[in-house]
Amino acid sequence: MDLSQLQQLIDTMYSEKDRKRGASGTFLWLMEEVGELAAAIANGTQEDKEGEFADVLAWLATLANVEGIDLDKAMRKYSEGCPGCGGMVCRCNEKP
Amino acid sequence: MDLSQLQQLIDTMYSEKDRKRGASGTFLWLMEEVGELAAAIANGTQEDKEGEFADVLAWLATLANVEGIDLDKAMRKYSEGCPGCGGMVCRCNEKP
Repeated sequence: MDLSQLQQLIDTMYSEKDRKRGASGTFLWLMEEVGELAAAIANGTQEDKEGEFADVLAWLATLANVEGIDLDKAMRKYSEGCPGCGGMVCRCNEKP
Repeated sequence: MDLSQLQQLIDTMYSEKDRKRGASGTFLWLMEEVGELAAAIANGTQEDKEGEFADVLAWLATLANVEGIDLDKAMRKYSEGCPGCGGMVCRCNEKP
């Protein structure tokens, strides 16, 4: 699945509710899923983690839809190398 | 860019540091980026938001790499319909 397909899929599935809820309300639901991901990483099976990663990614795509952001275009920030050092293998010293 | 390419790109760029840092440390950096995304949504330009969505997605991919999760496989949870109601257009009443 590519990022454009992901956003389109999520848009078809959820856009009516998304647009009514707006960015702030959508961010709250994203945070709930982030919390569930934390719990799965701390204490879950690989299957639990897989499900929670999917939910976080789905809600991130929903939020991008609400905000009019094209995730594929956004990721061009990384496609030519690390935004910090420019390397295809990062040599930054920050965020160890 | 598809989800497998995204994970591979991020793995090439950051895997050495990622594996040393582990899941907990990586989660902290993801949370920093989530905070920056919130700030961009509240008070940023479309360009700011685009950059922050990319950073959150990159750190989510990094965390998935650390945890051995295949995001493309994980998203099959959504590819046949909403995991809640099964519809390609969601009819769930929860999460309005």
